Amino acid sequence: MDGSVANEALVMRSDADGVTTLTLNRPAQRNALSVALMGALIEELAHIRQDSGCKVVILAGAGPAFCSGHDLKEMRATPEPAFYEALFAQCSVLMQAIVTLPQPVIARVHGIATAAGCQLVASCDLAIAAEDARFATPGVNIGLFCSTPMVALSRNVSRKAAMEMLLTGEMVDAARAQQIGLINRAVPPQALEQEVQALAQKIAAKSALTVKTGKEAFYRQLEMPLVEAYAYTAGVMAKNMMAADAAEGIDAFLTKRMPVWRNC
Amino acid sequence: MDGSVANEALVMRSDADGVTTLTLNRPAQRNALSVALMGALIEELAHIRQDSGCKVVILAGAGPAFCSGHDLKEMRATPEPAFYEALFAQCSVLMQAIVTLPQPVIARVHGIATAAGCQLVASCDLAIAAEDARFATPGVNIGLFCSTPMVALSRNVSRKAAMEMLLTGEMVDAARAQQIGLINRAVPPQALEQEVQALAQKIAAKSALTVKTGKEAFYRQLEMPLVEAYAYTAGVMAKNMMAADAAEGIDAFLTKRMPVWRNC
Amino acid sequence: MDGSVANEALVMRSDADGVTTLTLNRPAQRNALSVALMGALIEELAHIRQDSGCKVVILAGAGPAFCSGHDLKEMRATPEPAFYEALFAQCSVLMQAIVTLPQPVIARVHGIATAAGCQLVASCDLAIAAEDARFATPGVNIGLFCSTPMVALSRNVSRKAAMEMLLTGEMVDAARAQQIGLINRAVPPQALEQEVQALAQKIAAKSALTVKTGKEAFYRQLEMPLVEAYAYTAGVMAKNMMAADAAEGIDAFLTKRMPVWRNC
Repeated sequence: MDGSVANEALVMRSDADGVTTLTLNRPAQRNALSVALMGALIEELAHIRQDSGCKVVILAGAGPAFCSGHDLKEMRATPEPAFYEALFAQCSVLMQAIVTLPQPVIARVHGIATAAGCQLVASCDLAIAAEDARFATPGVNIGLFCSTPMVALSRNVSRKAAMEMLLTGEMVDAARAQQIGLINRAVPPQALEQEVQALAQKIAAKSALTVKTGKEAFYRQLEMPLVEAYAYTAGVMAKNMMAADAAEGIDAFLTKRMPVWRNC
Repeated sequence: MDGSVANEALVMRSDADGVTTLTLNRPAQRNALSVALMGALIEELAHIRQDSGCKVVILAGAGPAFCSGHDLKEMRATPEPAFYEALFAQCSVLMQAIVTLPQPVIARVHGIATAAGCQLVASCDLAIAAEDARFATPGVNIGLFCSTPMVALSRNVSRKAAMEMLLTGEMVDAARAQQIGLINRAVPPQALEQEVQALAQKIAAKSALTVKTGKEAFYRQLEMPLVEAYAYTAGVMAKNMMAADAAEGIDAFLTKRMPVWRNC
Repeated sequence: MDGSVANEALVMRSDADGVTTLTLNRPAQRNALSVALMGALIEELAHIRQDSGCKVVILAGAGPAFCSGHDLKEMRATPEPAFYEALFAQCSVLMQAIVTLPQPVIARVHGIATAAGCQLVASCDLAIAAEDARFATPGVNIGLFCSTPMVALSRNVSRKAAMEMLLTGEMVDAARAQQIGLINRAVPPQALEQEVQALAQKIAAKSALTVKTGKEAFYRQLEMPLVEAYAYTAGVMAKNMMAADAAEGIDAFLTKRMPVWRNC
């Protein structure tokens, strides 16, 4: 069915005040990541990457859940190695498109975020969840270990916390998710939209150039030894200092006025 | 004395319902890791590696403590570089044998887990401790920094938490150990056995093939840059999808019945 | 003005019982890290590196704050790429001088620790803060992302916690800083000096050779894959066992007496 639906329907996009909200829109399937849905999301992210009007992205889910992971029916319908290789390669492209997107991405989590849905949360730069949201990597329960989700999960939470989720497949609640570092914080369900918007707008008010510079450098330096990380980021900062926004921001700070960003 | 005792006595093994319990058995020495005890443990792990009947391993200690680390008397009895090199090489082989074992290993911690005993806890995939258990890397107090224990410790807990344990040598209680990520959770002493068994049986009920696939991939991908980790695990998942257990597990899930694992 | 002040004034040094306290001394500028102050601190650390009488270093700030980061006025006064490259290179040398110093460094944090001041805290081996201390990486607010501070920050705290600090620029209190791993603990302001001294003296009472061996190995093994880390640290421990202090420490422990360190 998905194949006949336009991409706009699978992922809804709305824009306001520099904040772009992408909403996964297969509510009856709890936003299961079909090939078509992943394709639509990758496409939207490619548009956003080029969109200087977009400062921050919110990733949300329509209906009762944030995202329940891959579409198992679709997966079992084509039991061929080539199909699976393409599927997981596509999923990995999607997750890395979030990480490499110049704009920060905030996961807005309600209901459940399981398997590749949990991976989406872990792949986002920031995450706020409703207090009654739940998280799991339950692949082990169906004979399919959450091996790609764990790439993102294990880079967010400690080894034993990750291993417990991966080996038991059990749900963890939002309080536990916050404790182990999978989300930034949990808020009452009725406050979720407001809290996510407030965070997004706070970041949208910064210099987009500065934010982009920092996000890119963050993930790159994380994979470097200390000496190399400092050599790299010292260069990033020296270059950042020559940007008009740094001059404006520092001068505004020193003269106690609001900066006006030119994003260059 | 250890040399004259059979391996079976130094490490006791019991098997039930796919769960293998290995019990360190030098209670009078608080299970100090003599050369003979480490050798016995390495040997048992080598057997378990080949044992398709074993799905999960519990590592426990007989007597008042989980494990107090190396056998200091034995160490001082042969003050020769070659002996020490062989000793720490053997210890490192032991710890890595836990990490590379196909089956998950759960530490069942009571009393104290110190020095290489704390390293055993950190090296296991999961750990549950009695609320009155205590943990330390106290080598600094005797002029011998816990340099090999810190390899495992620093891959479980944050830098400052690890440094505090390593530089002060002081005990941390089970609540703190949970907070910093060294153990999954602390339970009342009288519930320890039951909680560890329940966790072990939960994992033993999964597809052993799936668990083995996931555990191996977990530690391998952790040491890779993100791009490489995704390329690797996407391949692992595509292969996992072609296994009989994945087909069975997903079909069982979609038709709301219990799966029957064939472990292939 | 700084240029005409002797180094002794910019960084005050005091020594007592093997504990060296370095106090940043630009209180009116909340200890902003001018080129001269960083130079003075690097110089003091170079002296300490050679000083066998110094066992532990405490890093503190004079006046109302620990450290507010770089000196923005000085930075804007010379808007030249070469100046900025030299500035951030110098800052990176300073931070790595703390990491590679043989002696452990404890941050004694009060007031605020922001931008490169927060980086100092993250770069120290241990940190104790007053309960009313606050931490931030606020560069994003002035168009200059905290790209070098995040090298240290992201190696102390989880990704989402780091990203929240970096993208919002907001203050986190000492309780949150403890929770995310940026500091070891927060104490009442009136107890700060006493708690830091107690921790420093505890470490100063250990074998300096052992502490130096361990600190160096800690940071080196962190950047290695597991197999390599064990090969390296097993060698470190074998060598450590041949030191006089290890023999003394273990013999003292086995005979229940206090060790007397010769630091060799």
